[in-house]
Amino acid sequence: MNFTHPFLDGDGDDKLHEECGVFGIIGAPDAAAACALGLHALQHRGQEAVGITSFDGTEFFTRRGLGHVADNFSSAESIAELPGQMAGGHVRYSTTGGSGMRNVQPLYADLASGGFAVAHNGNISNAMQLKQELVSKGAIFQSTSDTEVIIHLVATSRYPTMLDKLTDALRLVEGAYALVVMTPRGMAACRDPMGIRPLVMGKLGDAVVFASETVALDVVGAEFTRQVEPGEFIEVDFDGTIRSHRPFGNTPARPCIFEHVYFSRPDSIFNKRSVYESRKNIGMELAREMPCDADLVVPVPDSGVPAAIGYAQESGIPFELGIIRSHYVGRTFIQPSDGARHAGVKRKHNANRKIVEGKRIVLIDDSIVRGTTSLKIVQMMRDAGAKEVHFRVASPPTGHGCYYGVDTPERSKLLAGRMDLEAMREFIQADSLAFVSIDGLYRAVGLEGRDKACPQYCDACFTGEYPTPLTDLAGRKDKDAQLSLPVNKVA
Amino acid sequence: MNFTHPFLDGDGDDKLHEECGVFGIIGAPDAAAACALGLHALQHRGQEAVGITSFDGTEFFTRRGLGHVADNFSSAESIAELPGQMAGGHVRYSTTGGSGMRNVQPLYADLASGGFAVAHNGNISNAMQLKQELVSKGAIFQSTSDTEVIIHLVATSRYPTMLDKLTDALRLVEGAYALVVMTPRGMAACRDPMGIRPLVMGKLGDAVVFASETVALDVVGAEFTRQVEPGEFIEVDFDGTIRSHRPFGNTPARPCIFEHVYFSRPDSIFNKRSVYESRKNIGMELAREMPCDADLVVPVPDSGVPAAIGYAQESGIPFELGIIRSHYVGRTFIQPSDGARHAGVKRKHNANRKIVEGKRIVLIDDSIVRGTTSLKIVQMMRDAGAKEVHFRVASPPTGHGCYYGVDTPERSKLLAGRMDLEAMREFIQADSLAFVSIDGLYRAVGLEGRDKACPQYCDACFTGEYPTPLTDLAGRKDKDAQLSLPVNKVA
Amino acid sequence: MNFTHPFLDGDGDDKLHEECGVFGIIGAPDAAAACALGLHALQHRGQEAVGITSFDGTEFFTRRGLGHVADNFSSAESIAELPGQMAGGHVRYSTTGGSGMRNVQPLYADLASGGFAVAHNGNISNAMQLKQELVSKGAIFQSTSDTEVIIHLVATSRYPTMLDKLTDALRLVEGAYALVVMTPRGMAACRDPMGIRPLVMGKLGDAVVFASETVALDVVGAEFTRQVEPGEFIEVDFDGTIRSHRPFGNTPARPCIFEHVYFSRPDSIFNKRSVYESRKNIGMELAREMPCDADLVVPVPDSGVPAAIGYAQESGIPFELGIIRSHYVGRTFIQPSDGARHAGVKRKHNANRKIVEGKRIVLIDDSIVRGTTSLKIVQMMRDAGAKEVHFRVASPPTGHGCYYGVDTPERSKLLAGRMDLEAMREFIQADSLAFVSIDGLYRAVGLEGRDKACPQYCDACFTGEYPTPLTDLAGRKDKDAQLSLPVNKVA
Amino acid sequence: MNFTHPFLDGDGDDKLHEECGVFGIIGAPDAAAACALGLHALQHRGQEAVGITSFDGTEFFTRRGLGHVADNFSSAESIAELPGQMAGGHVRYSTTGGSGMRNVQPLYADLASGGFAVAHNGNISNAMQLKQELVSKGAIFQSTSDTEVIIHLVATSRYPTMLDKLTDALRLVEGAYALVVMTPRGMAACRDPMGIRPLVMGKLGDAVVFASETVALDVVGAEFTRQVEPGEFIEVDFDGTIRSHRPFGNTPARPCIFEHVYFSRPDSIFNKRSVYESRKNIGMELAREMPCDADLVVPVPDSGVPAAIGYAQESGIPFELGIIRSHYVGRTFIQPSDGARHAGVKRKHNANRKIVEGKRIVLIDDSIVRGTTSLKIVQMMRDAGAKEVHFRVASPPTGHGCYYGVDTPERSKLLAGRMDLEAMREFIQADSLAFVSIDGLYRAVGLEGRDKACPQYCDACFTGEYPTPLTDLAGRKDKDAQLSLPVNKVA
Repeated sequence: MNFTHPFLDGDGDDKLHEECGVFGIIGAPDAAAACALGLHALQHRGQEAVGITSFDGTEFFTRRGLGHVADNFSSAESIAELPGQMAGGHVRYSTTGGSGMRNVQPLYADLASGGFAVAHNGNISNAMQLKQELVSKGAIFQSTSDTEVIIHLVATSRYPTMLDKLTDALRLVEGAYALVVMTPRGMAACRDPMGIRPLVMGKLGDAVVFASETVALDVVGAEFTRQVEPGEFIEVDFDGTIRSHRPFGNTPARPCIFEHVYFSRPDSIFNKRSVYESRKNIGMELAREMPCDADLVVPVPDSGVPAAIGYAQESGIPFELGIIRSHYVGRTFIQPSDGARHAGVKRKHNANRKIVEGKRIVLIDDSIVRGTTSLKIVQMMRDAGAKEVHFRVASPPTGHGCYYGVDTPERSKLLAGRMDLEAMREFIQADSLAFVSIDGLYRAVGLEGRDKACPQYCDACFTGEYPTPLTDLAGRKDKDAQLSLPVNKVA
Repeated sequence: MNFTHPFLDGDGDDKLHEECGVFGIIGAPDAAAACALGLHALQHRGQEAVGITSFDGTEFFTRRGLGHVADNFSSAESIAELPGQMAGGHVRYSTTGGSGMRNVQPLYADLASGGFAVAHNGNISNAMQLKQELVSKGAIFQSTSDTEVIIHLVATSRYPTMLDKLTDALRLVEGAYALVVMTPRGMAACRDPMGIRPLVMGKLGDAVVFASETVALDVVGAEFTRQVEPGEFIEVDFDGTIRSHRPFGNTPARPCIFEHVYFSRPDSIFNKRSVYESRKNIGMELAREMPCDADLVVPVPDSGVPAAIGYAQESGIPFELGIIRSHYVGRTFIQPSDGARHAGVKRKHNANRKIVEGKRIVLIDDSIVRGTTSLKIVQMMRDAGAKEVHFRVASPPTGHGCYYGVDTPERSKLLAGRMDLEAMREFIQADSLAFVSIDGLYRAVGLEGRDKACPQYCDACFTGEYPTPLTDLAGRKDKDAQLSLPVNKVA
Repeated sequence: MNFTHPFLDGDGDDKLHEECGVFGIIGAPDAAAACALGLHALQHRGQEAVGITSFDGTEFFTRRGLGHVADNFSSAESIAELPGQMAGGHVRYSTTGGSGMRNVQPLYADLASGGFAVAHNGNISNAMQLKQELVSKGAIFQSTSDTEVIIHLVATSRYPTMLDKLTDALRLVEGAYALVVMTPRGMAACRDPMGIRPLVMGKLGDAVVFASETVALDVVGAEFTRQVEPGEFIEVDFDGTIRSHRPFGNTPARPCIFEHVYFSRPDSIFNKRSVYESRKNIGMELAREMPCDADLVVPVPDSGVPAAIGYAQESGIPFELGIIRSHYVGRTFIQPSDGARHAGVKRKHNANRKIVEGKRIVLIDDSIVRGTTSLKIVQMMRDAGAKEVHFRVASPPTGHGCYYGVDTPERSKLLAGRMDLEAMREFIQADSLAFVSIDGLYRAVGLEGRDKACPQYCDACFTGEYPTPLTDLAGRKDKDAQLSLPVNKVA
Repeated sequence: MNFTHPFLDGDGDDKLHEECGVFGIIGAPDAAAACALGLHALQHRGQEAVGITSFDGTEFFTRRGLGHVADNFSSAESIAELPGQMAGGHVRYSTTGGSGMRNVQPLYADLASGGFAVAHNGNISNAMQLKQELVSKGAIFQSTSDTEVIIHLVATSRYPTMLDKLTDALRLVEGAYALVVMTPRGMAACRDPMGIRPLVMGKLGDAVVFASETVALDVVGAEFTRQVEPGEFIEVDFDGTIRSHRPFGNTPARPCIFEHVYFSRPDSIFNKRSVYESRKNIGMELAREMPCDADLVVPVPDSGVPAAIGYAQESGIPFELGIIRSHYVGRTFIQPSDGARHAGVKRKHNANRKIVEGKRIVLIDDSIVRGTTSLKIVQMMRDAGAKEVHFRVASPPTGHGCYYGVDTPERSKLLAGRMDLEAMREFIQADSLAFVSIDGLYRAVGLEGRDKACPQYCDACFTGEYPTPLTDLAGRKDKDAQLSLPVNKVA
């Protein structure tokens, strides 16, 4: 199994991780097969577990597994277990091993109104509080997932229709969510009022498709229709009827700007913009803001490549693959005691010695989280004979944790959370270090700059300005413990 | 994996199957290890799945698996996952593959009052009705097991103490149950008012033990204290305090007489009597009621052995192993097309040709369910050269299904449900066929005979007289379908 | 997986173990399916590995696996991999884990004369010497099995026909062998000149079958023709032609008498006698030679049952199941520290307390090897309240190792190798201990007694009189080390 | 499992595949750990099986597995099975499933002179002939691998020393080989007289290392010493003594030029040149020879990237990632019937639509084998809105099979084997198609051009000029069938 981020990953241990991807399709004769393919295209959003639920007009069917989509859903047998014209699925970047399969989504429940399945990307920041209230009324939770709170709120809602029940439930919920919901009546997709997490809509013949990113539409052969708007609630019936609702009225959108920086695949369209172009633009901004006298622009592969192309084009310095990335990474190996300095990082990245020897190089990476990999990469360049190593980062310093469905280290482990620029430079031992400015980042995504009064994106990881209250925050880091009363550990 | 009944099995496909065994221990330093060993001794009561839940004073831990106890709980690692001085477990004869691990007990829930785990042997005959009511109030079921109904009734009970909540819940429940319950306060064991399913109590040093059969006490080295009485509810605290309650008052007991006939191990004590002696006595009654002029008494191994010894001793006809049973059974093999007539039955039972050749034999089996195996055994004896084959059965004709936690074929598939004695004899092609009488059976277990007004045992499978109402009966055969609203099939 | 001896085992660790079983069939449309079924019936002769080789007229196909036949050959896919009308197979009681799959038989080689496959039951006692000579000439061994020596001797023989090559090879070989050989011309079966290991022949329609025991013929539906005679070499062609050869002339036969005592299934015919009757006869001899004043005859199940029936019939003391054997044994469990005295033995055997309490009992077992299990069984009887425990053994004291394909402990670990009768009695703590005499054993198998000048059976394990030279003896216990030059350990 | 070529792969089904990588180390305290890491760095040379053999001064130890190095050798347990200061290993691109583990190298044999292990990259083109001779003298082959021929030649050589035996053996052998050999005396590495397959030497502290590519030296932390010269035979003793021999005298070298084009990692040094620079140079040559009026240079990732960078730098046309490659490929998915046109290729490569829309693009790929993937890529570009699609190939047309250890389709399936340039262009539906010239290729690797009289590289796949006789050629495609007499298929 390969746990690396597919497209843009520098080092598995030193990146923020998007926690989930969702996909749904209704009206297709082989919905589960399309769903598996779509989730495969979203694999970079969650590589540790995957599940698909389908509905055949009468019954719901669910199949879950640990590992990649291809490990669990590439056989004809696995797809045959999921009959029907509606299917929804989920890939997950699992934070803990202990909680096991119970937390693998879609979650499902038999409600009095019939079956109810949900796949959720995001994080509910008052889940613990809501769970305690529900349990005190006799609700029995089967997972430690915040998503299950939504199901119980729907189950106990007194509103008559599913739309009303779900609206009723989501009104109590605080945080970020992009949901794909299935009931015997059809599929629903909704996005939190600020649209923090992405969700798009497409068309595949007569079928309607929802996905976290447009790349999943491409891969199944669907046409991109539009994004699900922040606060929008879309219902699709089996006869193809589509209804859009705005139960929360209009609030200013705050989509996650880090989707442009790193999370989304470069061939996706996010918030109406090409992610690849955004990244190239960031590289160009960076070249303008933080120029550098050097012989080569070298990307930290693969996540630094688009920004490096931008930097090279803008600066006129040649773009070269001074670091080669192995595709075979996976597990840790037993280290031989002799000589294998930095073998861990070399297993993944190896200096292209003949290229960098005797050269002044500008390294381009998308972001710095803990800084540990950046340090190793700089050293690797020096060991290979680079004369100077300048480090340029295609995002502002990441100094704050995310509570909206992204796995971030504690602030005390974020390099920018504990050091100033010069200290960071010393830590990674670069000759110079520079980040793109927050306004430069906003310019790169087509705006004039950041609107301080009302920022156009959620950029809390850079600015610490969280767009929602964070009720459960205290215990955030150990979410499982926080959300549960005495927990039953299931192997 | 070996799916045969361990002790008494003639043919896996042609026996009634006890559906579960339970075991609990509190106050032992290595409770889970003792629990694994105890469940291993109850393996014949359920061979398809096993689970253990332990409590370490703070948290509950659960581990479940498909297959035998030894496959899942013989490693030190598996036991180390289950710390604490209290542990309870369950072995299960699974009726369906589809429902998977979710139905493997103990079931567990985090209630507002704390963790609650339950292992159940029996069957709740109004579970579907109760489930529908609970779901209509917002309860979400995670399994298709009738046992989960008890948990939801406890979760929503308004009584203050756990004892009261459980009593409140069980008052609504109809059918058979022997329960081992764990909460942060300690362990509780209870048996339905008629005591249909067995449950005994023992002592292992300072620890208190509960088990479906005394053989589990023997194997863990515990001393047999007494049986849990019908309708009794026993609480054991961590300080060793034991409290007995009779929340339902006194009602006449009706324990399952088939435990004597086949379910329990012969070295167990059931309802204060040695099971082995009961079986020998049945064989003696049979010899008196249904004598036979023959050269040899041949048991259908292994379940017919004790009754055959009794028959031989009473009749003076020599006891011989005319049929040899293989211990290696398991799966079905691909049958070679030539010659292998009855290879299936021969894989399990083979004629001891030199012994039966030219002889008049009395075959002794514990019961006849569908009759298909009996037919093959009779033919095997004739093929091996037996001159006459007389069949004697150590129980009355089994003509009725059981709804108290025993897997029985539909009545239309029970040989005694569709034929009279002569037709049965013709079907199995024996020279003669006879069953012990119902009164003979009662005499064999130490009574003067069956009390028609108020039978001392549940003998519904022989008489059709069910001791409780059977509310959900209509859909009983497909229990999963019956108990659930549109069901989510999980692989 | 269940590693216990199927039929007759008392305790897996305290018995001699037959090391192999072989099966071959030629002329059947679905040879591999019959072979799998036949090997399944021989499972008690080797439970740790199994292999089948088939020939479809052009190519040979081999499939091997660790574990039971049912684990490896019950699927249609596994049988479909083995096409053709000829198939031969082997079950193996593996002595070491390290040597792995390479030693799983049938062994196969492409010789200049075509394919050559062999399955071997027995042990070549000069294999090391022969191997050294072959390697010095450039032979490359792929296994550490003594059987491979035969293949290399055939490969390098200068004789023209396969019959001559094989005869040439076997002339150099010393020890015990029962072989099933396959070549593109057909099947051959042969037995060493003294016929130490068993081999029988049968007919299934037009097909010819060979097997270690007649029970395998029964199970596949074949008719028993006759045994392969000691020193006989039988060729069967694809057109059904059968040719018998006696390349070594006539020498007195010395079949293994322990096949009657324990190795063969009771429903097999060995050396023209019913094994079950032999065992009953031994019990009767024992009752005459070593009578006992007691209330009950109790067999150590299952291996002591036939002798106990004989003892009871001869003595008139009632036969009772005073010990109940669990069918679920397998692995060792983690022992809870409290109370579980003898839990290991109880997992397998449990006292039927109500039966033995207050009684004087005669325990009957087939043999005593190390004595450790006998001690535990005696103690278990006393713990259950037996007043007196007398031990009677249905074979003479086992004081010598076997070098003919039977796994025996070193002499220093054999109870009878290091103690006299009274010391043995004290060791197992019985009130009395007695063995059948060597002449009594010969009488039980139909002879007048042991012919000292020329014993009719190999009884070396009782008498120390080995019928062949033991060239490699020095290193015998660690056979792998002994037979090999610097060995390549393959995982 | 990920079957894609790691670095440079366009499409697993449409590339030539190097069949093996070898690694050896002697004199290191944890040789096996270094070997695992080194093989991991060579994973792109063979992804279906891996083996390591070590020697601890007394015994050899071997562990083999199917799949990747990380799947088989990343645990401490796996390395602990391989003690000693010398270890050698092999990764393999397996051609057939049937032959299974027996063909996984290193191959090992106990010879009269002691243990002998060999790992081989290459192909012996007269193996069948040699095998037939050996078998006729009594040799028994255990694999269908051509490598085993070398072992049998060594085993039967009459020369006294291992060096002489091996030289004697290799004198009979024809074709390509790079060998790592282990005996109790030490390690030997040798390369065929023309040095067709690569092999380099390095130093890690006091240890000596051999590897197929320098990248494996980098990753274990070793220093590159020099390449093993064509026809050179290097012995390394345990005391560090290194002896070089030239048993075959000097012949002109002909290393495989395709290592520069595709096989080697770009960060390796092959034949004294940076592979990355060679590829960039090819791109530059291509830009000069085959210019193109276009808006963007788009590499087919990842194998086309270095040449595309060269093409872009030389032509001045911007380099852009117009195709995004997924890292999650693996298996084939069940295709939904609707819409998913080219879903297979899209799972791996997806158009970066916003970049290519409306643009004239030059696609750069390293080579065209069957052409099927090229066709799909061109269509994908057009579907994404590209106005013109020009295809430039960084190698000459591949019109001939390779018989030196490279997996090539039959000539009739090679696009250049059955079509001229215009037909090829039509087949892949590009607006234009051009290949670098053979002289351009030679210039790119630093020569003045191809020396027709005596080519400096083996370029048979482009020119059809094979540098050795091809004795077994007739049956080459089905090597297993060809090399064997009636074969025993082992599952």
